[in-house]
Amino acid sequence: MQASDFSLPEHADGPGKFSRLERWLAPLVFSEVGPAPMRIVLGNGQGVTPPGVIPRFTVRIRDLRTLMELLLDPEIGFGDAWTEGRIQVTGDLVAFLEAVYASMASAGPSATWYARLVSKWIEFHQANTLEGSRRNIHSHYDIGNDFYRLWLDSQLVYTCAYFPSATATLEEAQNAKLVLVCRKLRLQPGETVVEAGCGWGALALHMARNYGVRVKAFNVSREQIRYARERARQENLHDRVEFVEDDYRNMSGKADVFVSVGMLEHVGAENYTGLGSLIHQVVGDRGRGFLHFIGRSQRGDFSRWIRKRIFPGAHAPSLAESLQVLEPFGYFVHDVEDLRPHYARTLEHWLDRFDKAATQVTGMYGPEFERAWRLYLAGSIAGFRVGTLQLFQIVFAGAKFGSMPWTRADLYRPQEALPEWTPATS
Amino acid sequence: MQASDFSLPEHADGPGKFSRLERWLAPLVFSEVGPAPMRIVLGNGQGVTPPGVIPRFTVRIRDLRTLMELLLDPEIGFGDAWTEGRIQVTGDLVAFLEAVYASMASAGPSATWYARLVSKWIEFHQANTLEGSRRNIHSHYDIGNDFYRLWLDSQLVYTCAYFPSATATLEEAQNAKLVLVCRKLRLQPGETVVEAGCGWGALALHMARNYGVRVKAFNVSREQIRYARERARQENLHDRVEFVEDDYRNMSGKADVFVSVGMLEHVGAENYTGLGSLIHQVVGDRGRGFLHFIGRSQRGDFSRWIRKRIFPGAHAPSLAESLQVLEPFGYFVHDVEDLRPHYARTLEHWLDRFDKAATQVTGMYGPEFERAWRLYLAGSIAGFRVGTLQLFQIVFAGAKFGSMPWTRADLYRPQEALPEWTPATS
Repeated sequence: MQASDFSLPEHADGPGKFSRLERWLAPLVFSEVGPAPMRIVLGNGQGVTPPGVIPRFTVRIRDLRTLMELLLDPEIGFGDAWTEGRIQVTGDLVAFLEAVYASMASAGPSATWYARLVSKWIEFHQANTLEGSRRNIHSHYDIGNDFYRLWLDSQLVYTCAYFPSATATLEEAQNAKLVLVCRKLRLQPGETVVEAGCGWGALALHMARNYGVRVKAFNVSREQIRYARERARQENLHDRVEFVEDDYRNMSGKADVFVSVGMLEHVGAENYTGLGSLIHQVVGDRGRGFLHFIGRSQRGDFSRWIRKRIFPGAHAPSLAESLQVLEPFGYFVHDVEDLRPHYARTLEHWLDRFDKAATQVTGMYGPEFERAWRLYLAGSIAGFRVGTLQLFQIVFAGAKFGSMPWTRADLYRPQEALPEWTPATS
Repeated sequence: MQASDFSLPEHADGPGKFSRLERWLAPLVFSEVGPAPMRIVLGNGQGVTPPGVIPRFTVRIRDLRTLMELLLDPEIGFGDAWTEGRIQVTGDLVAFLEAVYASMASAGPSATWYARLVSKWIEFHQANTLEGSRRNIHSHYDIGNDFYRLWLDSQLVYTCAYFPSATATLEEAQNAKLVLVCRKLRLQPGETVVEAGCGWGALALHMARNYGVRVKAFNVSREQIRYARERARQENLHDRVEFVEDDYRNMSGKADVFVSVGMLEHVGAENYTGLGSLIHQVVGDRGRGFLHFIGRSQRGDFSRWIRKRIFPGAHAPSLAESLQVLEPFGYFVHDVEDLRPHYARTLEHWLDRFDKAATQVTGMYGPEFERAWRLYLAGSIAGFRVGTLQLFQIVFAGAKFGSMPWTRADLYRPQEALPEWTPATS
């Protein structure tokens, strides 16, 4: 069968029955993503492979539209088509994405004019204004606490855990992370802490429960704040932790410590100096603080598909870029640690639990939602493994802050036994 | 006595006998350095003090020329005049400089048009070209090994030490620093290391002696290289450590590890991308490296006086600025630590030894040299105490480097007993 070059071919089902146009277009995928070890198969036809590469994965593309979308924007083209079942990948999804990311990283940064346009379009529509941020956060974090309970740890900590050993459980590792954050801040009883973006409140409650500090925690997610307040009441900590349903930009008052875990990703680079100014207004030159965020080794945009479908308005800065929050205000950077392998491991736990709850998720939100979120978790594992994503923890202090310990050895003393935490039932 | 406003007055020796012009000019010093707790006294006259400030120090300015130079450029004006005895300060010099730096820091960045011009002039004349760097380095490090032996530790380590406890001796702390650097790099026997700017060779020899690695170490200081080679021969390490008298820019070959301790200060910000490119050429994406350097919390120039008299061509970058070495080449920043209090302590040890050897130093190079170096050491202590200077250690790795340990706990295990080092006698 010979299709005309000038008419869009119908999808051909038989082996070897795909069009000359498709055969001509398919190799172009490799000029987008580099020589990844995969065979691209159109319909049920024969496949194309980069020259000299032994394929480890087969990517089956259902139709010409899907192929065209992939060529215009590999990120969104793949993400949407995989979610809708128009692309199928044989073999382990994480390993496949890892191979593709590694191939893309070594091929160097590239984006089609179309993809760059899409990126700008997304950026414009998801701008982190006060109203935009509320919408962006709502669309991700207010999906429903029952959903997150299916695959997060019992404390609902939705940020990178810290595995003191490679065999630690997720519950242990999330608790160790809370301890690590508090240790890095060297919290003292009686101090006041302001938290920007508190999730379901685990860190704020942990600080108040174990370090004798008072915490004021901000979040624009209504569902999360509702849950956090309920937990504070159940634990009788509501006189020491105040959960405020508001944007961090509306913070006021003074505190000794500023902390933000997994929030900078939602701030947007254009607001970094504003965030720094706010931190300075709250903790001044005598205070200190902590930033924990997904970063990158080089400046660049967050995945277009992730921004379109999962995290609207998200941006992962390079370390130098993130320092725009601190340097204009003369903050001293005391300690930076990259926990990249810890986030890969955290996400492996999440994906494992998510997979086990797949039927429930599909029942709650439908199969496409389930596939989109599976892809997001798998892609994030791959990103942290390959290193397109990093996880930075920064400890900083004002010029007039008293002093930190001589060394960081105190961070690594054995962990004291902390009061056990009982998951809230509401 | 009433001097005309329009003629330059003669210096008046009697109490209260200084001119109206001088009385009018003196308070302007405070508009340069902020309300520092000092009384400025002209000749033997009465003094001026910032309003509402209780003076802790008296600064005696000998003549109008000195006062004018101070107003035109407080850094060079003070440094040169103090060195030549035209300015005298009562009380502890370090404490005085600390008070002035703190006052200048809170007054905010300012420099007169003249000082800015001087800064540019110095920058131009001390540019770190291949030839310029050689001249810059020669003028500081080739003064004579006997001089440095008077006040450095027995291994001649001329960079920030690491005090595992506040009571460690300088010898212990310099050794602990060498161990810390090697631990942060997780050196493995058989690996190859390239060092840019090796001083008198202590780190290179330490690595070869204790970690079974081969080291190629570069330095343009002839005196230092001569000494380092002699030490390598004495210790029978010359088959494992090669000391090369050459500029880091002339490096070639490949290595597993790049290390540079106290060298970035001499590179110049305009050469950071070049340095990064060189690192990438040597250790590629599979290697790793270490940068240890004097930095700042905000972008700014190194003291003009220090550049003019002590460290020609020096620049201390902010952390974000220093990342220009790494980010363009996709290096992952694994760990950043600020050792600021350690450098203040190191310098206190140096100044203490320097003070004890003051007569010898004066005998070797004259009283003005002795005073200039005492001021440099005292000013550096003050800078690190106040925080106008920081000391950053950065561990980085290429995208394809295998892996670092899960945590940094291994850095803080007790130090094994290392073979004792006997100071070279030559």
